Amino acid sequence: MPSKKTIQSNLNAAAIELFDEMLSNSDVLKAKVLETKLGPIIIDFGIKAKGGYLAGEYVTQLCLGGIGDVSLTTTKFTDDFSLSSISIITDFPVEATLGSQFAGWSIDKDNYKAMGSGPARVLARKPKHIFEKLPLVEEIEETVIVLETDKYPTDKVLKYIADKCHVELDCLYVVLVSTTSIAGSTQISGRSVETALHKLFDLGMDVSQIISASGSAPIAPIHQSNTDLMMGRTNDMLIYGAEVFLQVECKDENKLIEYLKKATSETSPKYGSLFYEIVKEAKGDFYKIDPAIFAPAKLNVNNTSTGKTHSFGKINSEMLKKSIQS
Amino acid sequence: MPSKKTIQSNLNAAAIELFDEMLSNSDVLKAKVLETKLGPIIIDFGIKAKGGYLAGEYVTQLCLGGIGDVSLTTTKFTDDFSLSSISIITDFPVEATLGSQFAGWSIDKDNYKAMGSGPARVLARKPKHIFEKLPLVEEIEETVIVLETDKYPTDKVLKYIADKCHVELDCLYVVLVSTTSIAGSTQISGRSVETALHKLFDLGMDVSQIISASGSAPIAPIHQSNTDLMMGRTNDMLIYGAEVFLQVECKDENKLIEYLKKATSETSPKYGSLFYEIVKEAKGDFYKIDPAIFAPAKLNVNNTSTGKTHSFGKINSEMLKKSIQS
Amino acid sequence: MPSKKTIQSNLNAAAIELFDEMLSNSDVLKAKVLETKLGPIIIDFGIKAKGGYLAGEYVTQLCLGGIGDVSLTTTKFTDDFSLSSISIITDFPVEATLGSQFAGWSIDKDNYKAMGSGPARVLARKPKHIFEKLPLVEEIEETVIVLETDKYPTDKVLKYIADKCHVELDCLYVVLVSTTSIAGSTQISGRSVETALHKLFDLGMDVSQIISASGSAPIAPIHQSNTDLMMGRTNDMLIYGAEVFLQVECKDENKLIEYLKKATSETSPKYGSLFYEIVKEAKGDFYKIDPAIFAPAKLNVNNTSTGKTHSFGKINSEMLKKSIQS
Repeated sequence: MPSKKTIQSNLNAAAIELFDEMLSNSDVLKAKVLETKLGPIIIDFGIKAKGGYLAGEYVTQLCLGGIGDVSLTTTKFTDDFSLSSISIITDFPVEATLGSQFAGWSIDKDNYKAMGSGPARVLARKPKHIFEKLPLVEEIEETVIVLETDKYPTDKVLKYIADKCHVELDCLYVVLVSTTSIAGSTQISGRSVETALHKLFDLGMDVSQIISASGSAPIAPIHQSNTDLMMGRTNDMLIYGAEVFLQVECKDENKLIEYLKKATSETSPKYGSLFYEIVKEAKGDFYKIDPAIFAPAKLNVNNTSTGKTHSFGKINSEMLKKSIQS
Repeated sequence: MPSKKTIQSNLNAAAIELFDEMLSNSDVLKAKVLETKLGPIIIDFGIKAKGGYLAGEYVTQLCLGGIGDVSLTTTKFTDDFSLSSISIITDFPVEATLGSQFAGWSIDKDNYKAMGSGPARVLARKPKHIFEKLPLVEEIEETVIVLETDKYPTDKVLKYIADKCHVELDCLYVVLVSTTSIAGSTQISGRSVETALHKLFDLGMDVSQIISASGSAPIAPIHQSNTDLMMGRTNDMLIYGAEVFLQVECKDENKLIEYLKKATSETSPKYGSLFYEIVKEAKGDFYKIDPAIFAPAKLNVNNTSTGKTHSFGKINSEMLKKSIQS
Repeated sequence: MPSKKTIQSNLNAAAIELFDEMLSNSDVLKAKVLETKLGPIIIDFGIKAKGGYLAGEYVTQLCLGGIGDVSLTTTKFTDDFSLSSISIITDFPVEATLGSQFAGWSIDKDNYKAMGSGPARVLARKPKHIFEKLPLVEEIEETVIVLETDKYPTDKVLKYIADKCHVELDCLYVVLVSTTSIAGSTQISGRSVETALHKLFDLGMDVSQIISASGSAPIAPIHQSNTDLMMGRTNDMLIYGAEVFLQVECKDENKLIEYLKKATSETSPKYGSLFYEIVKEAKGDFYKIDPAIFAPAKLNVNNTSTGKTHSFGKINSEMLKKSIQS
């Protein structure tokens, strides 16, 4: 339990409502629904089912715990180069992204690996270093987790998740998204604001100063069977294509600027390489990758305490083109 | 009945729901509602009633059989030239556009001519050459048709439509849109994706490979009494202004590229003329018009099987300006 | 009572529905709700409560009396300069903007000053010169007013408003927005179309010819404690950043053009100064400010009677940059 005054959020309740809507609209969302004997209900987008843009939009809303607006649009990068994009806007950026959307619960159980996101993280307090600083709590007996994966979770995995969330097995709702599906690619690009907040959190900024946020990123074109390529491209869309707007309430302008200066991808020595190449260079070991590269391309910040606006980084159309042609 | 495995769609059911919403909101949609003695309920946008942007957006959603998201936006073509636009996105492009939205039912009865679109086409199997290849079927006793027209249909026409759809007269719902109304102009520009799919279908491509799609086109400014001019302008918006994104699942990259190469308007020898002029040159005989011109301006295609992305054609701001000044 | 045929509108009924939604979602809207002993229910965005983007979007919809679609988006002004924006579209521009959204009820009572907008103006017939020409009437016993203010209204002020609207005190619903809050800044930029219509009304044009409209304007970055600066910036966003599209039905093309020529901000001799400077030069006396400056940056008008389209004015990125850095 954090020492700060706790904040009672309702991310799980809102996500469960969205999960129910997704169940009712599973055909239109091109989903496959599994009602497991064990208890959990699973919605699959991209493993046995195809998923689509609408599914990606829904998963993004669910991951934001219902406290963000999501829309699909098109962004014109140069006169002859446009990509489908996903935009989000939220007046609760910390709760919605660090508290829920951040894919920070690293699940590794029963030979099954997946990154977990969604409001289940609040109940499981995962990852620990986030919830030590984020005083978010929820008292609820049901929860939703989103797993970025190409495989169905085993019974042991489901039990592990329910256990960590302190919910009964039939109170666990699971969304599966594959990076190689349209839904999966879409919901990763829905993480523009999350990428910015996570970067600022890692830099040590007091993120509770961030009061509203919006952002958009292009959606990576799909290769339906090349997971490594898709991991590269989806990250490239954020690193070279995400533009984020933050409203920050911060008395110390200089301190704020120091954080912002380090918070875009161009500060990384690896900037200018495709993420696919960066991973290859690190021989697949994520811990060897320069962490500065995990950041949005461009950040625009309005400090509401001083009225100033600052912009750092830039959208890099050339790298986006290179990525989708890779 | 097609030989392929049939696909059970629900385009009519969704369209009827939207029709009911339109009835409830007829004031806000600037519609005139006619409850005919014969049975069919008619909603008029642009003949005796004005219709507006919101009506155009609704008609587009209805034409897509409810399985597409529609939004009104603004597109900046050059620094000082913007136009209102309509965007659509769908994860069921074949069903929504070829199955329903395509204005391919040519009605010519009792001295009344109109192009029919909407999910009534599934029940009537019109036009035949589409439904011979499209294995879409619906078992439903109610249906909605959209007629692009400047006149009210006669009783004989309504009976003919109900008869062809195998529904009772009081189970037929009719939407009338005039090309010279804002609603009419808007819903034509809502046909960006449909124009691309129809072109690829005509070229012989297996369109079932097209799994998701989005697109947008500018909305032609109105001349409320010049039908010929409006027919020209509304086509120009698609020919010179529609940009379409397709997700295609296709093993044979070269074959796909061969289709795509022929699928944008710039492949037509008539490219560079206003549609109004092209029609005049053909002396009003549509069958003499080069069919290659009926295509979107720009096509971006992601082949999900190979991960490649291809772009053909271009947005032509000069022709758009010329068209709206004609 | 105007001499013309009256138009029965439903702006208050729709706004009350939106007010109820706002009450139900007060947490997500970051609102503070006050159920006063006197009767009126007050929703506060920006005085004691923070408000946010979503609140600004809601207030805009409410101000438009529910007959306009509102969306939050991002506008790219130059390759490296984007701002969050708010877009509206309506098929009832006169009723929605002049009848309701225009902040034209100047309240000055009990040492309390605020500009009133929203459908309460129809009941109170404020300001008089608008409702002498606008034959809008509503028979309803409840009403909603939006007050642009930094203070809570006193009981005397609330009684005055209820009295002028001819409603009981417990039938008065009040929304408070501060210019120094995100919600307040957002809803001011939601007035792009209103600014155009008000200008054309002041120039003497018969605004009933304006049948549909859309528009967007960038949202001014916030200074949470500098009201004067925010008054400047929010006006700059409209003067230098608002682009409006109108559909007008007008037989006399030349007369229309004469009005349009005078209807953008660049016709003012003060064009090129920040609004903050203009106010300072006028020593804070609004009546000394050149009225020509209160106009949108750019106006695009389609005359549906003649089919012609005209554009006047321009978006001024340099002044927008200057304003947000001021």
